[in-house]
Amino acid sequence: MGRWEPNARERLGRSALELFLERGYESTTAAEIAERAGLAKSTFFRHFADKREVLFGGQDRLNRLFIDAVTGVPDSATPLDAVAAALDAVAAAFGPEQRAFVRQRHAVISGNSDLRERELLKLAALTAVMADTLRERGVPDPAASLAAELGSLAFRNAHARWIDPANQQDFPDLARQELNELKAATATLDQAPGTAR
Amino acid sequence: MGRWEPNARERLGRSALELFLERGYESTTAAEIAERAGLAKSTFFRHFADKREVLFGGQDRLNRLFIDAVTGVPDSATPLDAVAAALDAVAAAFGPEQRAFVRQRHAVISGNSDLRERELLKLAALTAVMADTLRERGVPDPAASLAAELGSLAFRNAHARWIDPANQQDFPDLARQELNELKAATATLDQAPGTAR
Repeated sequence: MGRWEPNARERLGRSALELFLERGYESTTAAEIAERAGLAKSTFFRHFADKREVLFGGQDRLNRLFIDAVTGVPDSATPLDAVAAALDAVAAAFGPEQRAFVRQRHAVISGNSDLRERELLKLAALTAVMADTLRERGVPDPAASLAAELGSLAFRNAHARWIDPANQQDFPDLARQELNELKAATATLDQAPGTAR
Repeated sequence: MGRWEPNARERLGRSALELFLERGYESTTAAEIAERAGLAKSTFFRHFADKREVLFGGQDRLNRLFIDAVTGVPDSATPLDAVAAALDAVAAAFGPEQRAFVRQRHAVISGNSDLRERELLKLAALTAVMADTLRERGVPDPAASLAAELGSLAFRNAHARWIDPANQQDFPDLARQELNELKAATATLDQAPGTAR
């Protein structure tokens, strides 16, 4: 007990998702996750406060990546540049090696209404933090809120495309495409459906 | 018991908010709400499933107003016209006579993290339903999602201004102003902060 275990966090995360998908999230215990990973239960609790944190523990890091990126762009950057930089930065959490995990995580969350709510709330918090960070950069409201919502929509859409088994593109490419499409769509909001641009 | 009570629902709603603000939401029971209103506990449960529904029971009506308005605009309407019609329609739930209730409701929700989460989730659901309704009208994505987010932002901002004690304007005016400001802000998203338009 208490000894160092190589890759314990990753092993626990993988075992947790296997069990969540096999038995359901509600029916899986921390002890079972540790057992599947070949680790002690106490090791589980050194890495995660509870089984829910296996799914949402990465969110703080994601928020940090977003905020640091928006803070780090030069003063001359436009609100959309800042949002694009944030989307680029989160690519660090969505590399090819994370795709299987993120896809399984999505399947688990989709199947449980409490987890879906938790995911929505985390995204709302992330959007609010982005808007705050843009305001601190001097972007006035409602442009700050609007840019943050565009970033949030681009993130959600890129995430959905990225975890699609048929997808071959990497996350930053998808996020840029989605943001560009949203930007283009702003010009169509006062056009009747079916009207040529 | 079981007899008709004039304005029972309104009386229960007002009593509930008084008690939530006096004693805290968590510490207030349905029996106490009924007692304050001079009604039987069974009358409370004929009108509300639980005390939380006093705060969120109006939400289904709000969703219905939004959806019906978006569905009802002519085919030639732009996505923003449809969203503006939805904001106009919800004015029926935000008349001068509801302002005290809505303001107290906001104070109760602001003071309780579970209720704040519930409010965020309700708003996310409303935004999703608006986007779906726009898609059914033939608005393509991501314009449908974007228009719904603009409507949602305009609604939140107008709501915040409307319940401000200093406010003299009515809800539809505020909502229109907010939507127009958001529309204008879309043109500033690729301008550096401080740049003249």
